Amino acid sequence: MDTTLLQRMIEKFKRDRFAMYVGIGILEVSPGYAKTSLEIQEHHYNGLDIVQGGVLFTLADFALAVASNTSEEETTVSIESSISFFKPGRSGTIYAEAREMARSKRLISYDIPVTNDKGELLAKFYGRAFVRDKR
Amino acid sequence: MDTTLLQRMIEKFKRDRFAMYVGIGILEVSPGYAKTSLEIQEHHYNGLDIVQGGVLFTLADFALAVASNTSEEETTVSIESSISFFKPGRSGTIYAEAREMARSKRLISYDIPVTNDKGELLAKFYGRAFVRDKR
Amino acid sequence: MDTTLLQRMIEKFKRDRFAMYVGIGILEVSPGYAKTSLEIQEHHYNGLDIVQGGVLFTLADFALAVASNTSEEETTVSIESSISFFKPGRSGTIYAEAREMARSKRLISYDIPVTNDKGELLAKFYGRAFVRDKR
Amino acid sequence: MDTTLLQRMIEKFKRDRFAMYVGIGILEVSPGYAKTSLEIQEHHYNGLDIVQGGVLFTLADFALAVASNTSEEETTVSIESSISFFKPGRSGTIYAEAREMARSKRLISYDIPVTNDKGELLAKFYGRAFVRDKR
Repeated sequence: MDTTLLQRMIEKFKRDRFAMYVGIGILEVSPGYAKTSLEIQEHHYNGLDIVQGGVLFTLADFALAVASNTSEEETTVSIESSISFFKPGRSGTIYAEAREMARSKRLISYDIPVTNDKGELLAKFYGRAFVRDKR
Repeated sequence: MDTTLLQRMIEKFKRDRFAMYVGIGILEVSPGYAKTSLEIQEHHYNGLDIVQGGVLFTLADFALAVASNTSEEETTVSIESSISFFKPGRSGTIYAEAREMARSKRLISYDIPVTNDKGELLAKFYGRAFVRDKR
Repeated sequence: MDTTLLQRMIEKFKRDRFAMYVGIGILEVSPGYAKTSLEIQEHHYNGLDIVQGGVLFTLADFALAVASNTSEEETTVSIESSISFFKPGRSGTIYAEAREMARSKRLISYDIPVTNDKGELLAKFYGRAFVRDKR
Repeated sequence: MDTTLLQRMIEKFKRDRFAMYVGIGILEVSPGYAKTSLEIQEHHYNGLDIVQGGVLFTLADFALAVASNTSEEETTVSIESSISFFKPGRSGTIYAEAREMARSKRLISYDIPVTNDKGELLAKFYGRAFVRDKR
């Protein structure tokens, strides 16, 4: 594992104040790939005592943001995302893994499963990022 | 405006701890309709100093949750959502308005524009809720 | 109504051999807008004797293609679409209306209701086109 | 491979007149799984001489229909689909493979890659079916 890249991305994404506020961490990074995690706490629940959909979305969207910004030569911005919810998150740690699925000059697509610590699929996030400018 | 329904929903959704943690409020409610709002604060920004996608998602998803639970006879749960981002949120207050677009016995669909206080469209959320059980 | 533009688009889109094969026509066009129609025939049904999902998709996607190519200065290509099915199509004529919902330099978004001749909403199509090159 | 199931599904889906009209065949079937194929012909092209989006959608949607109807105990209907286009289809044969990704009592989700005969990913279809009634 490229720990330099991991350290660099952890440093860079400290500026993502919402991800920090929610409590999301970066576990692994490689070019075009990122794994994020979150330990479920009281403030992540909705009114039905399950993890709020916005938490799962943010966890996955943040994985996409990290994965799509591993290159220093391009800046990307998320343009469209969809998420399907399969199983409620209840406790423990949850994970999102962003992997590049397809790429053209300007668009990158990611398929991002969200799982719990038993490896169960809680949600599937699909997102597309736009490459804003080449540096 | 039915202020009794509004008060009832505000009370009920205090239990949505994540929405409360993010800072989202309920402005208006009627059967099958809800408008939520959020005053943008420091902890809502991402690394590019614009409102994080997860914040816009959560604001809209919460509007859906409120709108789809205005009936006391049914409980609904969100099963699938997609969001498209058009314009970055920067400051001031942002809004999401959930309106029922279609309904079958078990499925309800919502179209939810997210706007800023100049009325500009920041994002469009489309979501579907499943009617879990009739009481 | 700009009949010159309508005639020009009808001519241009005769080259869309699949839309022609399915039997789709162009009813109205204005900059960033198009309405398409289809008279339901035997070959549009699926095994349940309702209009096949691919027919509704193609009708809406074709409306997007026409609407997004009304300018002679740009060529667009569809990159992502989602469709939700609400009510089965059974007989008569069905319509799709593509309207530009948001636009940035490179991306245009359309919201496209699909209706029958009683005005009932059969499906909702949401699609995004990428502006490939400016001429 | 269960050729009885394959034969049964081929017979059953002859009634899908639109899939037949487009020219789609069923290659493989097992419980919750189906692979469909299409040999690209002149009538599948759009105005840009690439395979029309509606063709790729129909190929994938039909794979979903077959996969989700392999059980004799339930009837399903497609409620929502999204498709992302990555690479144009140009000639030869194209394929769609529907695999069950998640399932609850009433909802089944499929992830469906659409590929050409070089194994390149042309599009990714994600769809959800609703289990209408248990027989």
